[in-house]
Amino acid sequence: MTAKPVNLAEALQSFTEVYSPRIVARMNDYDVRVAHTRGEHVWHAHADTDEFFLVLDGRFDIALRDPDGHEHTVVLHPGDTYVVPRGTEHKPSSPGGSILMFEPSGTLTTGDATAGDIPAHVDSTAGHDLT
Amino acid sequence: MTAKPVNLAEALQSFTEVYSPRIVARMNDYDVRVAHTRGEHVWHAHADTDEFFLVLDGRFDIALRDPDGHEHTVVLHPGDTYVVPRGTEHKPSSPGGSILMFEPSGTLTTGDATAGDIPAHVDSTAGHDLT
Repeated sequence: MTAKPVNLAEALQSFTEVYSPRIVARMNDYDVRVAHTRGEHVWHAHADTDEFFLVLDGRFDIALRDPDGHEHTVVLHPGDTYVVPRGTEHKPSSPGGSILMFEPSGTLTTGDATAGDIPAHVDSTAGHDLT
Repeated sequence: MTAKPVNLAEALQSFTEVYSPRIVARMNDYDVRVAHTRGEHVWHAHADTDEFFLVLDGRFDIALRDPDGHEHTVVLHPGDTYVVPRGTEHKPSSPGGSILMFEPSGTLTTGDATAGDIPAHVDSTAGHDLT
């Protein structure tokens, strides 16, 4: 009944797609997900939830847009954690890396308010199970 | 208004106490906490919540007790994740290391059903802020 441990490095080695999170653990009604990152994500927001990021490898930037339209970018390196508050428009980008995310089960990678088309390299998903 | 990134290594370097978690991030009504680990924790359970662990350094073991009294121990190394299901009696121990935890804000390190006295090296707390 008790789940087995999941190693983050092994989980990341089990797939190659970028911006296509895998669910490594579930606790209460939340997911712990990992993803490879490379290139531009898409502007989006999550109206009902904060989103927690931990950078595992490489670099991961999060552009944030204030309600008044001003933008700034948070640059994250391995071991850095950051929480995007609910309702905040943000767009991740990365020269290459991997991240861990913590968010309510069902949360879409592209949120509920995407601006513009979703690029082909971004998977609009609530996360995939590890295989 | 937007919080600054928090680096896990820097957070861990800011204190030395074992089994005395610091809150590195808050998202929704959950905490992300880090702790140094060394020695025996105490048998306890959390009736109302699962508990997520990620080992950052060293080794971290979790003894688990089934409802029928059988015990087994999960041995965790860096990068390993594990979820202790709600209501499950467990006792962490470690030869030395550090961990990251996700759990609802207010969750006590010693749960709501400790067996035996809480040793002096275990801090019964819902987590401390980083200073």
